[in-house]
Amino acid sequence: MKFNDRLRAVCREKNSLLTIGLDADLEKLPPFLMDFESPILEFNKSIINATNDVVCAYKINTAFYEQFGIAGFRSMKKTIELISGDTLLIVDGKRGDIRHTSEKYAKALFHELRADAVTVNPYLGYDSVAPFLEDEAKGVFLLCLTSNPGAADFQYLTVDDKYLFEKVAEKAENWNRNGNVGLVVGGTHADDLPRIRAIAPDLPILLPGIGTQGGDLKKSLSLGCDKKGESLLVTVSRSILYASEDLNFASLSRDVAIKMRDEINRVRGSKGRK
Amino acid sequence: MKFNDRLRAVCREKNSLLTIGLDADLEKLPPFLMDFESPILEFNKSIINATNDVVCAYKINTAFYEQFGIAGFRSMKKTIELISGDTLLIVDGKRGDIRHTSEKYAKALFHELRADAVTVNPYLGYDSVAPFLEDEAKGVFLLCLTSNPGAADFQYLTVDDKYLFEKVAEKAENWNRNGNVGLVVGGTHADDLPRIRAIAPDLPILLPGIGTQGGDLKKSLSLGCDKKGESLLVTVSRSILYASEDLNFASLSRDVAIKMRDEINRVRGSKGRK
Repeated sequence: MKFNDRLRAVCREKNSLLTIGLDADLEKLPPFLMDFESPILEFNKSIINATNDVVCAYKINTAFYEQFGIAGFRSMKKTIELISGDTLLIVDGKRGDIRHTSEKYAKALFHELRADAVTVNPYLGYDSVAPFLEDEAKGVFLLCLTSNPGAADFQYLTVDDKYLFEKVAEKAENWNRNGNVGLVVGGTHADDLPRIRAIAPDLPILLPGIGTQGGDLKKSLSLGCDKKGESLLVTVSRSILYASEDLNFASLSRDVAIKMRDEINRVRGSKGRK
Repeated sequence: MKFNDRLRAVCREKNSLLTIGLDADLEKLPPFLMDFESPILEFNKSIINATNDVVCAYKINTAFYEQFGIAGFRSMKKTIELISGDTLLIVDGKRGDIRHTSEKYAKALFHELRADAVTVNPYLGYDSVAPFLEDEAKGVFLLCLTSNPGAADFQYLTVDDKYLFEKVAEKAENWNRNGNVGLVVGGTHADDLPRIRAIAPDLPILLPGIGTQGGDLKKSLSLGCDKKGESLLVTVSRSILYASEDLNFASLSRDVAIKMRDEINRVRGSKGRK
């Protein structure tokens, strides 16, 4: 099945557009976890057990694991093994290189890490993205308009009366021949979502920047969903992960996740089967 | 010492602008190496032993190691341990994320992997690059104009009568407050090097694309060096690494490397002390 169809099916089945970013920061974990051999793995396990039925996908940002070298790589692999079949895995590495090298990254992310989808930086153009697109069952979220202040430096430059990020959206729409291309658009730029939807009405959008970064959830949903109220994955990390430092932290994270999923469904007008 | 000063000093000391990309491909290694526990590590060891005095730096592309998961990560770490103090290590990962995440990548690359310099994708703008720039002893080569065909998709878009890659060069020049910013410019675009040198006359340029990719070495050197005939690192992988499949492959790689270093020095007009 093409990735974008699969994503839609999973979101409908679970009635959720919520994605949790498993970006565990050692300094922010509940202190009692420090007694475990791998506090991050233990943390992730609790979060996954507590939220698996609430989310459509987990997002793993490779930086948070790579910083710990081989031990971190091992935690990442073990975390991935905990993510079960009906929940998608997005590996957020923002890779991208010349074709010959991107082929290796595609192998690393889709085979070694078993990602269902990845994030890719578009700056190197088509041949750098192509190896990630070959398998229609695997998805690629191209960085389009990122949530950070630095987005202004290049993404808002004007090219032929359009912003550069609109050029990226145009290319993404063209490159979607296998039904597996999506976009990353930060919720901090909700006002620009209509520009992107005008170019790419149906591509799935991965939307970080809600929560700690201050993006506007309601506006993002009303301007960023497709016409059916779908195709927008709201990815949240810190405000769900660090809901509490208590022994029962995971059940509090679950409460926040459920509240967020339901709020998303309310705003996008889903009937909600759960 | 600021990275760019250190780089200049190393290149002078070793009288070399040659950088070897340690991008070993299992399928291309001399077949007899397959009997070793880690063929890639064994291969890298031979190449490093044979060429260490000929190069100013080694470049490690993370994709070639990540594709093998934990075993690959271990080969990468062990390879890095073989690179000695007077030869620089550039880790080519083309990372870049929001500040909070780039901080983690900086830790992974500069501490876990002990890189002297890294490559960074500029698409996310200043705050995504800043964490890599904090330590003036560590260098950042920003992707400016890449060697691949896909460079045409975005890097050659026109912004205010300039190409996007010129805008990147402008930012790089502005961001060079710690004396540790450089640029990646593919040798396949040698004709555009003067545009970049007009904006960033002194920044070091990391130049891939010579050899297998067909870039023009002579033109790249004459148009890309700074006024002193320096600040251009010619990075070569396949045409040096796979010079031979024989038992003595490394000494043949050495021969090719010496020929290339000397050719570079001849063209740039160095007297050559070795």
